[in-house]
Amino acid sequence: MNLTSDNRTAIAPEILEGISRANIGSADAYGADSLTTGLKDKFSEIFEREVWWYPVSTGTAANALCIGQATPSSGATLCHETSHLYAEECGAAELFSGAPMIPIGGEMGKIAIDQLSSVIGNSAIRPTVLSITQPTEFGTVYALDELAALSSMAQDAGLRVHIDGARFSNALVHLDCSPAEATWRCGVDLMAFGATKNGAMCAEAVIIFNPSLVDGIDDNLKRSGHLFSKARFMSAQFAAYLENDLWLKLAANANRMARRLARRLDEFDSMKLAFPVQVNEVFVQMPRMLAQNLHDIGIELEGFAELEIYRFVTSHATTSVQIDDVCNDRIAPIVALFEQVRLS
Amino acid sequence: MNLTSDNRTAIAPEILEGISRANIGSADAYGADSLTTGLKDKFSEIFEREVWWYPVSTGTAANALCIGQATPSSGATLCHETSHLYAEECGAAELFSGAPMIPIGGEMGKIAIDQLSSVIGNSAIRPTVLSITQPTEFGTVYALDELAALSSMAQDAGLRVHIDGARFSNALVHLDCSPAEATWRCGVDLMAFGATKNGAMCAEAVIIFNPSLVDGIDDNLKRSGHLFSKARFMSAQFAAYLENDLWLKLAANANRMARRLARRLDEFDSMKLAFPVQVNEVFVQMPRMLAQNLHDIGIELEGFAELEIYRFVTSHATTSVQIDDVCNDRIAPIVALFEQVRLS
Amino acid sequence: MNLTSDNRTAIAPEILEGISRANIGSADAYGADSLTTGLKDKFSEIFEREVWWYPVSTGTAANALCIGQATPSSGATLCHETSHLYAEECGAAELFSGAPMIPIGGEMGKIAIDQLSSVIGNSAIRPTVLSITQPTEFGTVYALDELAALSSMAQDAGLRVHIDGARFSNALVHLDCSPAEATWRCGVDLMAFGATKNGAMCAEAVIIFNPSLVDGIDDNLKRSGHLFSKARFMSAQFAAYLENDLWLKLAANANRMARRLARRLDEFDSMKLAFPVQVNEVFVQMPRMLAQNLHDIGIELEGFAELEIYRFVTSHATTSVQIDDVCNDRIAPIVALFEQVRLS
Amino acid sequence: MNLTSDNRTAIAPEILEGISRANIGSADAYGADSLTTGLKDKFSEIFEREVWWYPVSTGTAANALCIGQATPSSGATLCHETSHLYAEECGAAELFSGAPMIPIGGEMGKIAIDQLSSVIGNSAIRPTVLSITQPTEFGTVYALDELAALSSMAQDAGLRVHIDGARFSNALVHLDCSPAEATWRCGVDLMAFGATKNGAMCAEAVIIFNPSLVDGIDDNLKRSGHLFSKARFMSAQFAAYLENDLWLKLAANANRMARRLARRLDEFDSMKLAFPVQVNEVFVQMPRMLAQNLHDIGIELEGFAELEIYRFVTSHATTSVQIDDVCNDRIAPIVALFEQVRLS
Repeated sequence: MNLTSDNRTAIAPEILEGISRANIGSADAYGADSLTTGLKDKFSEIFEREVWWYPVSTGTAANALCIGQATPSSGATLCHETSHLYAEECGAAELFSGAPMIPIGGEMGKIAIDQLSSVIGNSAIRPTVLSITQPTEFGTVYALDELAALSSMAQDAGLRVHIDGARFSNALVHLDCSPAEATWRCGVDLMAFGATKNGAMCAEAVIIFNPSLVDGIDDNLKRSGHLFSKARFMSAQFAAYLENDLWLKLAANANRMARRLARRLDEFDSMKLAFPVQVNEVFVQMPRMLAQNLHDIGIELEGFAELEIYRFVTSHATTSVQIDDVCNDRIAPIVALFEQVRLS
Repeated sequence: MNLTSDNRTAIAPEILEGISRANIGSADAYGADSLTTGLKDKFSEIFEREVWWYPVSTGTAANALCIGQATPSSGATLCHETSHLYAEECGAAELFSGAPMIPIGGEMGKIAIDQLSSVIGNSAIRPTVLSITQPTEFGTVYALDELAALSSMAQDAGLRVHIDGARFSNALVHLDCSPAEATWRCGVDLMAFGATKNGAMCAEAVIIFNPSLVDGIDDNLKRSGHLFSKARFMSAQFAAYLENDLWLKLAANANRMARRLARRLDEFDSMKLAFPVQVNEVFVQMPRMLAQNLHDIGIELEGFAELEIYRFVTSHATTSVQIDDVCNDRIAPIVALFEQVRLS
Repeated sequence: MNLTSDNRTAIAPEILEGISRANIGSADAYGADSLTTGLKDKFSEIFEREVWWYPVSTGTAANALCIGQATPSSGATLCHETSHLYAEECGAAELFSGAPMIPIGGEMGKIAIDQLSSVIGNSAIRPTVLSITQPTEFGTVYALDELAALSSMAQDAGLRVHIDGARFSNALVHLDCSPAEATWRCGVDLMAFGATKNGAMCAEAVIIFNPSLVDGIDDNLKRSGHLFSKARFMSAQFAAYLENDLWLKLAANANRMARRLARRLDEFDSMKLAFPVQVNEVFVQMPRMLAQNLHDIGIELEGFAELEIYRFVTSHATTSVQIDDVCNDRIAPIVALFEQVRLS
Repeated sequence: MNLTSDNRTAIAPEILEGISRANIGSADAYGADSLTTGLKDKFSEIFEREVWWYPVSTGTAANALCIGQATPSSGATLCHETSHLYAEECGAAELFSGAPMIPIGGEMGKIAIDQLSSVIGNSAIRPTVLSITQPTEFGTVYALDELAALSSMAQDAGLRVHIDGARFSNALVHLDCSPAEATWRCGVDLMAFGATKNGAMCAEAVIIFNPSLVDGIDDNLKRSGHLFSKARFMSAQFAAYLENDLWLKLAANANRMARRLARRLDEFDSMKLAFPVQVNEVFVQMPRMLAQNLHDIGIELEGFAELEIYRFVTSHATTSVQIDDVCNDRIAPIVALFEQVRLS
C-alpha cells in the first residue's frame, strides 16, 4: 500500500479487463470506433443531458483543453492560488488558451467569493473563465450552494465555468447528489472528469455541457497531441469505469478508507486533522520531525511542509486491513518513539 | 483484417501482457518507477550511447515535444510539404515551439537537397531545425547516405535534426542497419520513436541523443499535458516491445506482408505500384471508380484521390493467409467486374 | 532619392506638421484623445459605413492583429506564398492568432482561385481566414471581380477575408474606385490600412468592417505591445493623411512616377519589365551582373535574384526630375558600359 | 496641466525638433540608418560597456521583448504582484516568451526578498527570470543594495534579471548614481529604458547588457510587429533625449515638481502621503469622497480606490507655477469645502 498519492495505485481489475476485451481485431481510429461513440450516450445518460466528450490521457490535458475551449487568448482564467491548474501544471492552461491565469485566495482551498468579486471588478485583463477545483487541493468539497454562488457571479460577468474534477467521483460521493446537480445545474459549462486516480490506467474525459464551447475541439485535440489513434483503449477504460456504477463504488471505498484513516491518525497526540475529511485525502498537522521519521520508514507524504501539514491519500484499492496494519504496525511505533523522545 | 491504416490494429499480445504484468501494487508516479528508469539503460544499449527518453501517448506529442526542444520560438522548422508534422498535425509543432514550419518539396516524399539548400539560403526566418520523416509519407525510406547528406547540410547551417519515426522500426528493418547508424551516426539530434502503429496500445518515445537539447523537457512535458502519473503502464509497453527484439520482428512481419500484398496487387491490370514498397505501406495507382468500388465493399483506402493514388497498409498482425484471402476473395472479384465493365 | 523601397523615404511635410500641431498640452492616453476618437468618423465616412479603427506603428502589427481577430487558434490562415505575411513577417500572424499559415501559389503574386479551392477542400487544418495582399508583392493589383471571386469562395467556406493593404492607397488609385468598393463591398472583413510607405512616420491602421470581429481587440492591442499611450501622435499622422485626400494625391504621384520610370527603363535593351506596372513598383528583368553594377554605384535593388528580377520603388516624394536624372545620369551610363562590355 | 499620468504630456520641444531634423531625404530602413547605429555607441558610453539596443514604441513591447529574450517558454517570470508587467500588460510577457508569470508580494511595491526566496525554492515551474520595476508602481525606488541583494539571489538560482524602467530616468536621478551602477553592476541582464513618459513621442529602448541574451532578437522584433521600417524617427527621439543629458534634466524637473506638490498636499488635513516621494509620483491617502470631488472639477486621479490611495503624477513639462496654481486655485477650495461639510 502507498499513502502518498492515488496516482500511484494499480489499475482496477475491471478496467484492465475492459482494455483486454477491447483488444479484438481492428477498429476505426481517432475516436470513430463504437466504444468511443457509444460512450457519448452513456455520459449523456449519466449527466441527464446531451454532452460532448473525448478521452485524453492526463488530467492536465483535460483541464488545458477545457480552458482552451472556454476562453479566447485575450481573456484570463481565474482559479484558486493553490489549484493544480495554477500551481502544478506549468502553465498548460496558458499554452492551450493563450490566456493568462489570475490566482485568487480563499480558505481551505476554496475560492473566496468576495475575492472573486474583487478580481472581476478590478482586473486589467478581462476575466473570461472561472476554474473551480472540486474537490479542492485540500480535500474539501464545495457545497452545492457555494458552487452555485460562484458560478452565478461568474456567469453574470460573462465568464464560463470549468470544473477540474480529477477526483470528481470522490466529491460526488460526498455530496450525495446527482452528477447533473453537481455540474451544469450549478452553472458549470465544461469539466475535466477524472478516472486515473480512481482506478483507470490513463483516462480522463473532457466533458462539455455547453454546446457553444465545442467548436474547434477536434483541431485543438490534434494540435496538442491528444487525439489518440487507438482511442478505443481509452474509451474501454471509461466503459468499464461507468458500468454498474463502478466509478462511484471505487470512490466510495476510497472516501471510506480516508475517514477510517483519519479517525486512527486523530487518536495520536502528535497529529491533528487540518481540514475536514470529505474525500479520499487526509491532511494532518504534525511536527516536521515526525513526518521525517515516517518518511524514513517509507511513508512518504506530500503536503505543505512550511505549515507542517501533510497529506495521506487513500484509493479505490485501499482496504480496512491495510489501514489498520499501517496504523498499528508502522505509524504507531514511530509516533510512540517520537513522543517519548520529545517528552524526555 | 483492415488495410486502411496500421493505427487501427489491436495491441500485440506480448504488449498487453506487459501492461498486465506491471499492474501489481503501487509504483512511483511521473516516471520515477523502476520500469521507466530502467528503460533508459535499454534504449541506451539499443542506440549504443546514452540517451534521454520519455514515453508519451501519441506521435504528434512526440514530434511536437522534440521540435519544442530543438528550436527557440524565433526560429523555423523545415520539413517536407507532405510530412505528417506539416500536413496533418494541425500546427502542433508550432504550438509547442512557437516557431513556424516551412514546407519543402521533393520527389517521393523525400526532401530534395537543392530545395533544402535554397530555403536555408533564402528564408526570412532563420531555419533552426530540420525534420525528416523516416519512412516518408509515401512509404519510401531515405538511404543512409541521403540522410547523412541532409543532416550534414542542416548542421553546417546550425540546424538541429529531428526524425519523425512513427514507423521507424519498419524503416530500420528495410535499411538493415543498426539503430545508431540510422540516427545519431547520421547526425540526428532527437527523434519520435513510434510503437503504437507497430503493436502498442498508445506508446511513442521521445528519444534525445544530443544532451544539450534535454534542458526544460520535464517542464514541457507537464505544460503540454504529456507527463503521465501512471507512467509505468506506458513504459510497460516499451519494455515488452523492446524485449527479445519484438519490435523488429513485428516490423519485419508488416514489411513482408506489404511486399506480398504489393506483388498480388501489381498483377491486376488496373493497378500499378506508385512507389517502391520499402516498409509496410503499398501505394497503388488505380482509377478512382475502382477505389470507390473497393470502398463500397468495406475496403477503405486513404491516399491522394486527386492523383488516383491509394494506400494499403499492413501491420504486425497481418498474416499471409489474410493477404491471400483479401486478394482472392474480395479484391479480385471487384477488379474483374470493374475491368469487365470498362471494356464493355 | 532612393529607389530601393518606399519605406526609406521621409515624412510628408503635411504629416510632420500634423504631429507638431497635435503637440499642445496634455491629452487623454491610449486612444481616448479627441484626434483618435474623431478619426472613427472620418474613416467611417471614407468607407461609407461604420468601421472600428486603431492606429499601430508597423504593417506587421496591423496584419497580425487583424489575423488574431479573424481566426481562433484552431484554424489556419491562407495566403499567397510570396505574401509579406507569410514570407517576411517571421510568423507574426501565427504568434498573434495561434493559427498556422498555409501558403497558396498563383501567378504574378495573386492567389490562384483553383489552388484556393483545392486547399479549402483538402486541408487537414480548418482554414478560417483568407489574407489577400492588395497590391501584391509583385506590384500587381487584383481587379474587383478577382477580389470578389476569392472573397466569395472564402466566405462560402466560412472563412473571414483580410486585406494586407500596406500600399492600399496605391492600389486604390489604380483601381479608380471607392474605398468601399475595393473592400467590404467585395466581402472584406478587416484590413491593414497602410500609411508609412506613403508618407507617414509610423502609422498603419487596423480597420474592421465586420463588427463581429471587434471583440477582444483592446486586450490584444495591449498584450502585443501595440496600445500607445500617446496615441494622439499616431492619429495626428492619419488626420493629416486623410485630410483633403492627401493620401490619394501622394499615392497618385508615386504611381505616376513608377510609370514614368518604367517607360524609361523599358527603353534599355538589357532591361525588360517583368510585370505590368500598376502601382509604385517597377519589376525589371535584367542580368545579375548589371544589377550588381547598379548596386556598386549606390542603386540598391531588392527582388528575386535567382530569377534576375529586380524591383525599383517610387514614392510620394519622387519627382519627374529625379526620375529623369537618375535614368540619364546614373543608370544609362552603367547600362551602356555593361552592354558595350557584353558585346565586346 | 494634467496630474493623471505622465503619459498624457506633450513631446518635449527638443525631441520633436529631433524628429524634424531627421526628416531629410531617404535613409536605410529597419535600423540600418546612421542615427540608429550611432546610438549604440552613445548607449554604450552612457552605460560604460558595450550594449545592444533597439527602439520600440511602447513600454509593454520593450518589457515583453526583454522577457522573451531572457527565458525559454518552459520557465517562469517572477515579478511583483503590482508590477505593470503582471497587472496591466494583459499577459504580453507571456505571449512573447511563452512562460507564465508568478506574482510575488512585498511592501511598497518592492519584491520582498524572503518571498522571492520562498518562490524560488517551492515553485513547480522553474523560475528563469526576475523582473524588477524600478521605480516601483508606488513611486518608490529600490536602493542599490536592495537591488543587488535581489539580483544576487536570482542569479545564484540561475535566473536572469530584468528591469522595467519605464521611469528609469526618474529613479536614476533619485539614486544619484551612474547608469551602470544602477543596472549591470547590480547584476541586471537587460532592461526596458523608457523615454515616452519623460518627454518622447513614442520611444522606449530595449537595452541588453548580457550579450548571451541577444540571440534571436531580430526575429522576435519582426514577429511581434516591433521592427520599424523608418526606425530613424524612433532613434531621432533618443538622440535628442540623450544629448546634453536632456533625459536627466527632464527627469530632475519632474521629480522636483513631485516633491513640491507633495509638500503642498501634505499640508491639507484630509490628505496624507502614503509613500515616500522618490520620483515623479505622489501617492496620497484621502477620503474617497474628496477624490470624487476633485474628479468632478477635472482632476482625475488613478490609484487604489479600495485603499483610498490616489496618485498625482508630475512630468518633464510641469512648472512650479502650475503646481502652485493647481494647489491654490483648484485643490485648496475643494478640500476646504470638503472639510467644512465633514465637520458640520
